[in-house]
Amino acid sequence: MTTITGVRVHDVRFPTSLDASGSDAMNKDGDYSAAYVVLETDGVLSGHGFTFTIGRGNDLCVEAARQRAQPLIGRDVDAILDDLGGVYRELASDSQLRWLGPEKGVVHLAMAAVMNAVWDMAARRAGVPLWRLLVEMSPEELVDAADLRYLSDALTRDEALQILSAGQPHRQQRIGDLQMRGGYPCYTTSAGWLGYSDDKLRALLHEAVADGYRHFKLKVGQDLDEDRRRLRIAREVIGWDAELMIDANQVWDVPQAIDWINALAEFRPLWIEEPTSPDDVLGHAAIRRGVAPIGVASGEHGMNRVLFKQMFQAEALDFCQLDSARLASVNEILSVYLMAHKFGVPVCPHAGGVGLCELVQHLSIFDYVAVSGSLDRRLTEYVDHLHEHFVDPVQVLNGHYVLPSQPGYSAELHPTTIEQYQYPHGTYWLDRSTENVLVV
Amino acid sequence: MTTITGVRVHDVRFPTSLDASGSDAMNKDGDYSAAYVVLETDGVLSGHGFTFTIGRGNDLCVEAARQRAQPLIGRDVDAILDDLGGVYRELASDSQLRWLGPEKGVVHLAMAAVMNAVWDMAARRAGVPLWRLLVEMSPEELVDAADLRYLSDALTRDEALQILSAGQPHRQQRIGDLQMRGGYPCYTTSAGWLGYSDDKLRALLHEAVADGYRHFKLKVGQDLDEDRRRLRIAREVIGWDAELMIDANQVWDVPQAIDWINALAEFRPLWIEEPTSPDDVLGHAAIRRGVAPIGVASGEHGMNRVLFKQMFQAEALDFCQLDSARLASVNEILSVYLMAHKFGVPVCPHAGGVGLCELVQHLSIFDYVAVSGSLDRRLTEYVDHLHEHFVDPVQVLNGHYVLPSQPGYSAELHPTTIEQYQYPHGTYWLDRSTENVLVV
Repeated sequence: MTTITGVRVHDVRFPTSLDASGSDAMNKDGDYSAAYVVLETDGVLSGHGFTFTIGRGNDLCVEAARQRAQPLIGRDVDAILDDLGGVYRELASDSQLRWLGPEKGVVHLAMAAVMNAVWDMAARRAGVPLWRLLVEMSPEELVDAADLRYLSDALTRDEALQILSAGQPHRQQRIGDLQMRGGYPCYTTSAGWLGYSDDKLRALLHEAVADGYRHFKLKVGQDLDEDRRRLRIAREVIGWDAELMIDANQVWDVPQAIDWINALAEFRPLWIEEPTSPDDVLGHAAIRRGVAPIGVASGEHGMNRVLFKQMFQAEALDFCQLDSARLASVNEILSVYLMAHKFGVPVCPHAGGVGLCELVQHLSIFDYVAVSGSLDRRLTEYVDHLHEHFVDPVQVLNGHYVLPSQPGYSAELHPTTIEQYQYPHGTYWLDRSTENVLVV
Repeated sequence: MTTITGVRVHDVRFPTSLDASGSDAMNKDGDYSAAYVVLETDGVLSGHGFTFTIGRGNDLCVEAARQRAQPLIGRDVDAILDDLGGVYRELASDSQLRWLGPEKGVVHLAMAAVMNAVWDMAARRAGVPLWRLLVEMSPEELVDAADLRYLSDALTRDEALQILSAGQPHRQQRIGDLQMRGGYPCYTTSAGWLGYSDDKLRALLHEAVADGYRHFKLKVGQDLDEDRRRLRIAREVIGWDAELMIDANQVWDVPQAIDWINALAEFRPLWIEEPTSPDDVLGHAAIRRGVAPIGVASGEHGMNRVLFKQMFQAEALDFCQLDSARLASVNEILSVYLMAHKFGVPVCPHAGGVGLCELVQHLSIFDYVAVSGSLDRRLTEYVDHLHEHFVDPVQVLNGHYVLPSQPGYSAELHPTTIEQYQYPHGTYWLDRSTENVLVV
């Protein structure tokens, strides 16, 4: 018998604010960070997971993850991994921590980090990448793992089973499809950060075109004239056959969003992303009606499955951008995929940050193989940042995520990365604080 | 010039789980807790505020409040208190902390705690109770303090001004009205906790009737037969002219909620409170349509003003139960009151816990005097717990909150309470951990 003997949680922060990577109309100075969880056992097995933040407050997620993981310590690994729905429901049922959400904010981000580590451990135990663990689970096993609470007015257990059963006979063939086409298609956000100069924007777009991309995303929403100038540059470089997406990162009220987006319609964006508060289901629905045929995309701040349920019920989204480190890991993500399928909304997961690309590739492959069976209007975000810190980094070739082959959820960080970027006592941060003292 | 010299934040926890006070279908063992903020100055002035939690994780709110309050340290008190909207917007604009919500969960609870202390300080500086500070502010000052972001599709700045201006000529007279009737009317939840025996329930209801209450709330949702038995007891004691409210604390899915509530219709409840996930705007709207004429009430877990906006837009609520320590203090609460007025929904604030009664009495008085001008279908919750720990405790007489007269927001705890109940090193908790060791 193997036992979970402890949990280590690290506050890992990267100084991305220094070069304006990740800068947008809402987030000007993010330091990409991970509250990184390692579940340790008395055997060779371990589990690695994280949630993603942008700097201050990552310590809150670290402490919350420690508290969340506490009930796992001393438990039999097989008992935990043989009942992934049960362990999720047990951790989620802590009513004192639940009060701090419920199912949102810091305690939910921490739930994501811990359950991501549990799912990583399950895939490692099986000796397969997470996507393969999932596509080898039966419909019943998947539905038992999924969190369907509060969803029955939109998706019953029977409907969930039917969706998964309908895809089951096609799973092997669909894996072959993806392997043949070189992986799961993606688009790039690497060029479009607000803090980049026009020259840098132009150069990065040229580079992305050369790398085989056909979809490009730019940040907007700070200044309408600047948005026009940057979108003009983008269309000059990528032409009018490629797809252009724009992302406002929640800066507008609803009426303002409709006006601003329509003022950019001449650039024919495929979607506007996060036009307003991510909580505003009815607002997104109003914006969608007001800016068609431009699509509405949202989800990276979608707090939980109850929000997505309403987004689907209200016909508020053209594209669902669920986040692998904000939703409570695979258990909650499964439910969102199943609802999206029922309501006919393509899922294009949010990625970037630190390690989100590593996670979402598994989810997108699972979606194609076991749920949607379609690549129509489906693309997963890709940002070329910080992959070097991962033991099993994503491989993107010709605008496709290559199917991961190593066991696990691709979430493990190199030990040297932790030594260097652990906050505030990693070598990078110690050096930097010394530097600051010298400068002062 | 007076300067804010520091912030103290205390993790204060009361062992309410020992006697099942506060037990309901979702929360079986809450230890009522406060992340308690004291803003200190180099003068005699101080500011006291808190957010409310039920135990584990209160430390997360404490640490988040420390981080939230950091920008206030070293600042001129008058500059802060003369621009209560500006300081709110400054603290809310921390994009790194914002990522952890946005505007929900631990970081938002912490914002409530800190801004509650700022408003307390503003009222103390003026030498008046908070409700009087508010009713002496002009419509423009109130609207400048309010957080109207993301609301303009439901409430414009001009509409907010009109609502407040319409009430302005009546403010003095309405204060007199309240004083004459003995305060602001309330109802009691003290009798109805799920963990109480039938005998205790009956005795507490008799006591409440004798104390002059006409409205009584019971917890339901764990077992339908038990609910029937307890509601039958309640109607035996209070009769059929008094009002009975029931509270399910989020335990049901939407279709289940409709069935269960209708199965209790014979007891003629005035409202069903928190029938499902507090995030489910469309679910509450569906339940409301499915259980009329029983009203739907929710809000104690209403995470922010964007949620309430949608609740109003979707006609999902008969009663709005905003929470004074979950919404980001008066700045955000003002917006919810103004929207509620526009949409014709009475506000019956959530209270109980620790100190929530002390806070909400100020808000209800403000609502009557400056916004609604009505007591129709308006009652504020009252629970008779833990008031002895406050320097300026609520006074409830004949089912009314007596208008507070001491300067501030009534949020200050006795220093001896902090010494005793600070977790884990207060004298109560040290004694208890010694006891536990002896028992083992």
